[in-house]
Amino acid sequence: MYQKRINEYGVTVGRLPRGARNKITDVAGVLVGHKTIDNEQNKTGVTVIVPAPGNVYDQKLPAAAFVWNGYGKTAGLMQIDELGVLETPIALTNTMNVGLVWDGLMEYAARQCAQDGIELYSLNPVVGECNDSRINNILRRAVQPEHVLEAIASASADFEEGAVGAGRGTICHGLKGGVGSASRVVMLDGKKYTLGVLVQSNHGKLEDLTVDGMRLGEGLAVRDLGVTANRGSTMIVVATDLPCSPRQLGRILRRASVGLARLGSYVAHGSGEVMIGFTTARRIPNRPTADILPSQEMNEIRLDLAFRAVAEATEEAVLNSMVCADPCPRLDGEMVHSLREFL
Amino acid sequence: MYQKRINEYGVTVGRLPRGARNKITDVAGVLVGHKTIDNEQNKTGVTVIVPAPGNVYDQKLPAAAFVWNGYGKTAGLMQIDELGVLETPIALTNTMNVGLVWDGLMEYAARQCAQDGIELYSLNPVVGECNDSRINNILRRAVQPEHVLEAIASASADFEEGAVGAGRGTICHGLKGGVGSASRVVMLDGKKYTLGVLVQSNHGKLEDLTVDGMRLGEGLAVRDLGVTANRGSTMIVVATDLPCSPRQLGRILRRASVGLARLGSYVAHGSGEVMIGFTTARRIPNRPTADILPSQEMNEIRLDLAFRAVAEATEEAVLNSMVCADPCPRLDGEMVHSLREFL
Amino acid sequence: MYQKRINEYGVTVGRLPRGARNKITDVAGVLVGHKTIDNEQNKTGVTVIVPAPGNVYDQKLPAAAFVWNGYGKTAGLMQIDELGVLETPIALTNTMNVGLVWDGLMEYAARQCAQDGIELYSLNPVVGECNDSRINNILRRAVQPEHVLEAIASASADFEEGAVGAGRGTICHGLKGGVGSASRVVMLDGKKYTLGVLVQSNHGKLEDLTVDGMRLGEGLAVRDLGVTANRGSTMIVVATDLPCSPRQLGRILRRASVGLARLGSYVAHGSGEVMIGFTTARRIPNRPTADILPSQEMNEIRLDLAFRAVAEATEEAVLNSMVCADPCPRLDGEMVHSLREFL
Amino acid sequence: MYQKRINEYGVTVGRLPRGARNKITDVAGVLVGHKTIDNEQNKTGVTVIVPAPGNVYDQKLPAAAFVWNGYGKTAGLMQIDELGVLETPIALTNTMNVGLVWDGLMEYAARQCAQDGIELYSLNPVVGECNDSRINNILRRAVQPEHVLEAIASASADFEEGAVGAGRGTICHGLKGGVGSASRVVMLDGKKYTLGVLVQSNHGKLEDLTVDGMRLGEGLAVRDLGVTANRGSTMIVVATDLPCSPRQLGRILRRASVGLARLGSYVAHGSGEVMIGFTTARRIPNRPTADILPSQEMNEIRLDLAFRAVAEATEEAVLNSMVCADPCPRLDGEMVHSLREFL
Repeated sequence: MYQKRINEYGVTVGRLPRGARNKITDVAGVLVGHKTIDNEQNKTGVTVIVPAPGNVYDQKLPAAAFVWNGYGKTAGLMQIDELGVLETPIALTNTMNVGLVWDGLMEYAARQCAQDGIELYSLNPVVGECNDSRINNILRRAVQPEHVLEAIASASADFEEGAVGAGRGTICHGLKGGVGSASRVVMLDGKKYTLGVLVQSNHGKLEDLTVDGMRLGEGLAVRDLGVTANRGSTMIVVATDLPCSPRQLGRILRRASVGLARLGSYVAHGSGEVMIGFTTARRIPNRPTADILPSQEMNEIRLDLAFRAVAEATEEAVLNSMVCADPCPRLDGEMVHSLREFL
Repeated sequence: MYQKRINEYGVTVGRLPRGARNKITDVAGVLVGHKTIDNEQNKTGVTVIVPAPGNVYDQKLPAAAFVWNGYGKTAGLMQIDELGVLETPIALTNTMNVGLVWDGLMEYAARQCAQDGIELYSLNPVVGECNDSRINNILRRAVQPEHVLEAIASASADFEEGAVGAGRGTICHGLKGGVGSASRVVMLDGKKYTLGVLVQSNHGKLEDLTVDGMRLGEGLAVRDLGVTANRGSTMIVVATDLPCSPRQLGRILRRASVGLARLGSYVAHGSGEVMIGFTTARRIPNRPTADILPSQEMNEIRLDLAFRAVAEATEEAVLNSMVCADPCPRLDGEMVHSLREFL
Repeated sequence: MYQKRINEYGVTVGRLPRGARNKITDVAGVLVGHKTIDNEQNKTGVTVIVPAPGNVYDQKLPAAAFVWNGYGKTAGLMQIDELGVLETPIALTNTMNVGLVWDGLMEYAARQCAQDGIELYSLNPVVGECNDSRINNILRRAVQPEHVLEAIASASADFEEGAVGAGRGTICHGLKGGVGSASRVVMLDGKKYTLGVLVQSNHGKLEDLTVDGMRLGEGLAVRDLGVTANRGSTMIVVATDLPCSPRQLGRILRRASVGLARLGSYVAHGSGEVMIGFTTARRIPNRPTADILPSQEMNEIRLDLAFRAVAEATEEAVLNSMVCADPCPRLDGEMVHSLREFL
Repeated sequence: MYQKRINEYGVTVGRLPRGARNKITDVAGVLVGHKTIDNEQNKTGVTVIVPAPGNVYDQKLPAAAFVWNGYGKTAGLMQIDELGVLETPIALTNTMNVGLVWDGLMEYAARQCAQDGIELYSLNPVVGECNDSRINNILRRAVQPEHVLEAIASASADFEEGAVGAGRGTICHGLKGGVGSASRVVMLDGKKYTLGVLVQSNHGKLEDLTVDGMRLGEGLAVRDLGVTANRGSTMIVVATDLPCSPRQLGRILRRASVGLARLGSYVAHGSGEVMIGFTTARRIPNRPTADILPSQEMNEIRLDLAFRAVAEATEEAVLNSMVCADPCPRLDGEMVHSLREFL
């Protein structure tokens, strides 16, 4: 069922123009797939961002990560930091499923490389997570390796937002969270470039929620929606076709936090916030045939465009994750409401 | 002349209670001194935060730093990162004066140690800076080493805010910036603790300025105040008496950025933003007599109090730096207005 | 079968006294267990370091990590960096088994917490790896989650070294690598403290191998042992009962690299080298009842003792991993010799 | 007076070929200048590495830094980390002179930019240091800003090694340290590239000194040369014309530590060890006219050549700094011997 997005409620975030879909998939080649688990015990899933066509292990992408709050279990960042490349899709899931989802990405690459006749020698799966244990019986690790393959197989440019995939069981600012996305368009040397964001939102307190400068949460909090804890995290994936270096990508990623702060978060102890980004501007062969490789980077001062874009897109993506999500009961029976009930 | 502070304009930032002075000096033992240079060519200065009574080299303080945007020249962070201690006052000045101000802190420590009969073997002066070159002829390095000693000699708990000391020539969100401060009080195990912030504000675009959720800058920008560039930085010094470890202080420091984001900054390329913090809860002797030293740290989950405190105090400190600052002409003759003209 | 260790070959590494077993388990409470997989296709396994008695999730240990070369897939470091604690055993395995071994640690903690009546809300499994694909068919991910539980169940203070557990298929300096260990004793305030190291050795070129200052590898390399590649890694786990802070542990960990350098490694691109350490000096409750917790740290200058200890123990642990390992054929049929054939 | 270098004593470090001068200045365009202060109270100085011809502020160089042990006062690394560029010469001096030498680099750039008609808006001087207080009365800060300009004016490709410039007062492994250099040549795509190292050596204990695998220091230590303390540091500057990115340069820099470890250092607490590197392969304009800039990077696996080169060159540079240095009395009258007395 179609769900209205935040801009359809009259909330305009920022000043930059949006991409055609206003989603991370506005970056050409990026696809997103979900596998949602929804049964009595488990409301959880996996969401996979496929960063580019073809074999990503064989043709890697420049990448970076930024850990705003490292209270979390994201796997794969150490190698991204060292080598500045992404060589698998990025999978998001629940906290305790990181291991099995990691194995699912491994299985996916093994099959793809076998098919493509490429020796798979070493692989760095990237898995992010949020803790959805208030809605989902997390100890059961309901997401199995084959679910990762299903999510990838279903990946498309027109993916669903809200309480789906890795966002099925998340809570954001005391209301239902989920997966959300947005994008912005900027100009370099007269040419259009796109930056897109996808979030798995699971952070913040209700009382702090601020929408478009209005302290919406403060009013709702006194109505006692029954939400008190501030456990959770937010995963932020940034895709772009800007020709930036991994170092420049890292600078872009940390500005995603600006979007969260404007929504009222002060990044609680329990809110592991991790940004992972890549650019499709260039592919780096697994086994280059030359010793020296051509590259590109942005004029540093023009990064300001990307900084603004990522801050705006992150703020809007979180709001989209919330308004697109249906209300949902917690395991303890209390209702988690949707932001759209209050707009 | 007394200048009204932001809360006297009816703007209440956050929810936590303020300290008695609502300044960094609410943390017992912390003093702040300015030396302002104000002549035809130079409008600049130095502001020194004296972190504790006595000889700080001989009795160091747990400390941390966080570099939000490293486009800047702050000196002294490498050793703070490695050893987790502060052993000098913290001096703030203009970009090109870092060397001479560093030498001023060295001279101060040399004299103090000579007086106290302490061998000074190695010293790590900490100097932060903002670029005030639109108002100040920065190439002249007008701040001399002896000005650092004057600033320290004049340090007090009731220091001035606005266009003084290191804030004499700064510009914030296209209006006059300066030095500002605020504090918050939190409770641990039934006892009061204080966290105070001092900023040297020099960042942001006018069009982005947001006060208490209102997009004030957007309206002012169309009136063409003549400000376009987005060069600058913000230095943020955090003092507390919370018994936190350097690692925990580091976690606190990065939440200061939340305060900046709420005012509309997306941390531009040119805006080097650096946080330096210390706690007065414990002193670490230069030459301990035992091999094992007692320490304390906070229950990690209680850091949430400090996170909220630092975000609120930073936001309020920047606003105080702005409303307390008088308008001032730039070197090119254009006027830099004060925020208080528009409240 | 008993295998002689390097000191029994007349090679004395360093000057500090050894612990009783000269193993990581000289640190009271530390146990090590292996599960070795040995069949036609797979020669690999998992080695688990149990850091302390009881429920480590409920009573955590101060911990740190240092990434010397981040070309690797080690999971769990992000949270160690942020919070400075270890809350699971540390498991070492082969590169492609990180996901399933991660899930094994999760299962272990889930069962233990269920038994102990502790709510398991969030867990940070720590899994290191080396690439053993020259001896082991790594794509099959032969290590299953239940093998982790078996390794933990078998953990003891008198564990085996050489080509066992996670070291079954590794290659070091062109000769057979494996798991090795060593320890050193230092004195603080007149009391004995122990620092122990366990390595999974899988790095280096034959021609660079230097034993006790002698360029042993240079001579062997001309004999054409058939080893050319320099792919691999080394995992280094450091345990101690020194009352150091996580920051101080981090300083200790990076000195482990000195031991590797003395053996001739220059830390090749493909050699992901990761150090993980913990201290048993203090336990940190999962849910502390007070807001402020007592702690301890070392007089910083006394760290020199620990620095020397970790450098010596790492050098000796690698040599032990090599001389205790039996020769073993590679998947391509070529023999990987043991260092003990050449001493 | 000509001093023999370590290879003339029959000590061959490593396997790679040397550059023509076996100095950092084998990298085309790099020059080195000293200003030595030598009087009754002060034996110290400044050594400046001029990284490239022309105005380095206007045409910057890709750069990186690696802090092995951050107990030191090196200035300028924060901006190198953020932006990946070097925009001034690199000056080395004594610990307490960092401020005045910083101001000297600022004065140099101000004059050069005035001459070249370039607006100098913001500058990031890079200053490293070692503590030479056993030979030099360090509190006097004998190095003045104008000495920096003198050192730059005297810079040449055939600079002196040993107890000159910033190395006038340093002590290394209990013997006289100083400035030393070495270089290595590697091949990429059939073309020669050079990597050069310059060290200011001031670290280590006599008893640990190992030359070419021989524990030379152990024998000397029993002769009671009167040296006990282990205070000091080592600054390592790496220049190359390899077309590597700042990230890749950072990976190269950390392998310099391998050279130190082989000489017997375990990087004591008090030994702040800092690596700073740049490549001349590319210049980055201060104000680029395009939004996207062409770049290059190395095939990652070929970095192994550079890793070996920097380890070898660092080891040899330290030995050169020692054998080229004349013996010199300490302030307390004891003699600091030269390594060449014992070879």
